[in-house]
Amino acid sequence: MDLESVFRPERLAVVGVSLSNLFHPANIIFNKNRYGSSAEVFAVNPKGGMLDRNPVYRSVGEIPGGADTAVMAVKAAAVPRVAAECAAAGVKSLVVISGGFSEMGEEGRALQEELIAVCRKAGITLIGPNCFGVYSEGSIDTFFLPPERTVIPRKGDIAVASQSGAFLVDQILTNFYEAGIGISVAVSMGNKAMVDEVDLLEHFAGRDDTHAMCFYIEGIGRRSREFVRLAGEVSRTKPIVVYQGGKSTHGQEAAKSHTAALAGNIQVASGALRQCGVVEAATENEVTAFSKIFSFYRHRPLDTGRIAIVSTSGGHGVVAADLCESAGLGLPVFNEERRSEMRERVDSSLHDIASFANPIDLTGSVTDLDFERVLDYLLSQEDVEATLVLALPYTPLITSFIGTRLGHVVKKHGKPVVAYVPDLAKYGMVLEGFELNGIPVVHSIEEGVQMLKALRLLARRAPCTVG
Amino acid sequence: MDLESVFRPERLAVVGVSLSNLFHPANIIFNKNRYGSSAEVFAVNPKGGMLDRNPVYRSVGEIPGGADTAVMAVKAAAVPRVAAECAAAGVKSLVVISGGFSEMGEEGRALQEELIAVCRKAGITLIGPNCFGVYSEGSIDTFFLPPERTVIPRKGDIAVASQSGAFLVDQILTNFYEAGIGISVAVSMGNKAMVDEVDLLEHFAGRDDTHAMCFYIEGIGRRSREFVRLAGEVSRTKPIVVYQGGKSTHGQEAAKSHTAALAGNIQVASGALRQCGVVEAATENEVTAFSKIFSFYRHRPLDTGRIAIVSTSGGHGVVAADLCESAGLGLPVFNEERRSEMRERVDSSLHDIASFANPIDLTGSVTDLDFERVLDYLLSQEDVEATLVLALPYTPLITSFIGTRLGHVVKKHGKPVVAYVPDLAKYGMVLEGFELNGIPVVHSIEEGVQMLKALRLLARRAPCTVG
Repeated sequence: MDLESVFRPERLAVVGVSLSNLFHPANIIFNKNRYGSSAEVFAVNPKGGMLDRNPVYRSVGEIPGGADTAVMAVKAAAVPRVAAECAAAGVKSLVVISGGFSEMGEEGRALQEELIAVCRKAGITLIGPNCFGVYSEGSIDTFFLPPERTVIPRKGDIAVASQSGAFLVDQILTNFYEAGIGISVAVSMGNKAMVDEVDLLEHFAGRDDTHAMCFYIEGIGRRSREFVRLAGEVSRTKPIVVYQGGKSTHGQEAAKSHTAALAGNIQVASGALRQCGVVEAATENEVTAFSKIFSFYRHRPLDTGRIAIVSTSGGHGVVAADLCESAGLGLPVFNEERRSEMRERVDSSLHDIASFANPIDLTGSVTDLDFERVLDYLLSQEDVEATLVLALPYTPLITSFIGTRLGHVVKKHGKPVVAYVPDLAKYGMVLEGFELNGIPVVHSIEEGVQMLKALRLLARRAPCTVG
Repeated sequence: MDLESVFRPERLAVVGVSLSNLFHPANIIFNKNRYGSSAEVFAVNPKGGMLDRNPVYRSVGEIPGGADTAVMAVKAAAVPRVAAECAAAGVKSLVVISGGFSEMGEEGRALQEELIAVCRKAGITLIGPNCFGVYSEGSIDTFFLPPERTVIPRKGDIAVASQSGAFLVDQILTNFYEAGIGISVAVSMGNKAMVDEVDLLEHFAGRDDTHAMCFYIEGIGRRSREFVRLAGEVSRTKPIVVYQGGKSTHGQEAAKSHTAALAGNIQVASGALRQCGVVEAATENEVTAFSKIFSFYRHRPLDTGRIAIVSTSGGHGVVAADLCESAGLGLPVFNEERRSEMRERVDSSLHDIASFANPIDLTGSVTDLDFERVLDYLLSQEDVEATLVLALPYTPLITSFIGTRLGHVVKKHGKPVVAYVPDLAKYGMVLEGFELNGIPVVHSIEEGVQMLKALRLLARRAPCTVG
């Protein structure tokens, strides 16, 4: 299957542009690519004519020089016929946006089979139908929503695939954008008539620009064993985040009418995923937190899951300790000797008020230097694999250098550190220093713990026995 | 106990101002109140002198006309003596910011007993020690952090009390500010030498400006039965949110050194809280979500917990349905007759693509009118107690009127509705319409479900058998 050509078309046909409705999905796709893709982009509509001074071709076959990739947003009934035209014109890959296939019952299922047959026969790689399609910066963008109403994350090294286009665009891409997570490519798989999560897992694994991947799935169906077996190999070097929708009775019913996910075989057991090193997210927040930690630390399993917590607030330490216990992370207890070693490193004004147990509370009198020296000590400890920093920039002596200074400590030791900084616009200056220097920032204590849990889950794999 | 005078001082003494360190906690408190409180505010330091053209009195007794309330930020060892001076000068209530009491072992415990004895004898109401103190807009603000580094939520009807000052200022007040939740008063209880959660629960219950309350507690201790009994009464009219820190082994240890919470008697059983109508939060996010729904809908228990979900995305509906099941919320299944009734109400372009099961998927072709008419239908159904709206403003035909229009439907039926709108600055215009018209907005599907769960928990109380 030639997924490369899907993500890097040289000549892209957009079939179904309207001459009257500028908000038609095909028109949005045409404009996005006409002005955003390095490919040559051609508009197609049986009526022909001109669209914004661009010629509209009556069929893909009429395009001088042809097209290697075609995106289609036409009525479902016309799709197999247009696909056959594409095949005849030498198109190599096809993205079918249109709905009205297997998700709509028997009639639609027959149409989908017809479409598959055309593509198989011609050796065409098919994405969809009933999907948002694909996104690859500067090459292709078939997400047919008004661009002024959406956001796209920066270029980065996480590949994303989703069985729901809306979940992809809103829950994944919007949250990634807000969290500053970069993506390599994104795919809305829709009904997965041909290309599914197994093909994409394999493709992502081979991409040099991709170091982790994230899937939203409403039922893997017949290829679940293949997915688990392949994930077991890939996850040894590239972390895989999976969020499964449709686990409840009502959710499963909804998934059936949504993307024709098959009942009965809808979920991969969480145990099977964990055994094969997949990091399964339980909530939308975990999808973002897990993906973000992997974009900072790539593949860094925590073998013992023992971490330190350093805060400027007793209450935050208490809450973080509670969450760590639920997340399966351990807190080494520091004996009096180690507590004294830390105490010696901070300003004498803290000696009587700070607490050097784990969690550590440096109090509101902390300075950047105190923070830096305690973190340096903690990361030098053999039984500390990672550290959660709870930084409250309301403390008067913390400066906007704090992130930069802690970032240098992290680089020295090479152990993962995550920083909680509250979500206030005025803390932006502080926040920036952390992320520019390699420390991911979260806006809730819970997300900080989720991030370290993700690294722990990488290490908790068992020999893969499935498949 | 005279808590009224704590929140509305007429003459406020700030003891411990520094003549050299402008960042001293007492100086920040002095300035905040000197320029922000309707009370007359006086600076006190044994050295006397002038501070920014304000006289510094050598003792509270020297203030002409005296003071009804005193805030103290002096070394722990001096606190009992200064408290005695305050008593002699007729002070009625005392806020002791200083740390170094029962949280620091035997010596501190003795000091704290001495302080309590002085206050008891003089009939003084004592907040703290080891706390951030109290906030009441325009009256008093003893949160001694640089104001440019913190935020305070708008005036509203939720009262807040916390055993951790940092958790109060950061996790509660900052999150409330971001979520637009208003507060009546806020209290950091610290070591709770005298005033504790039971006293505050009683006080909040009697305040006309307070319709719900929120507590962060690291161990209720000897008065847990009283708290539960009183909460059982109060929660019949005013919702009570409780978040307990220190549930894990490490968390409990940390709480001990933090606010001297007693081990062994540290938590109130979740079962006891639920029986008495308290809504217990399991995470920081739930604290915010629960408080926000109560600030919109006050006391509105969902007796059956059956709700509808209406979305423009199949995937979002699937995820919401999964979360509802975990949260104990039920989704009535709509039969073909009811589905047809809804189908008739929307534009014909949706007839073949929308799904009218529960969750309902109106698809990306939805208009404001479709949304409005379907919500109107749903809220008219007897077996639908509340509705979760998943609004994705990337759909091209949704306008910035959507919130206003749905708000009118909600007012007509008087049933709770919560709207998910993604967290993008450019959706602000859409978001505003919802909240101005009585529909709370959340930025994750999970929080939307948490909000409706909070209303459900109000109804799930059993006859209170504790105490």
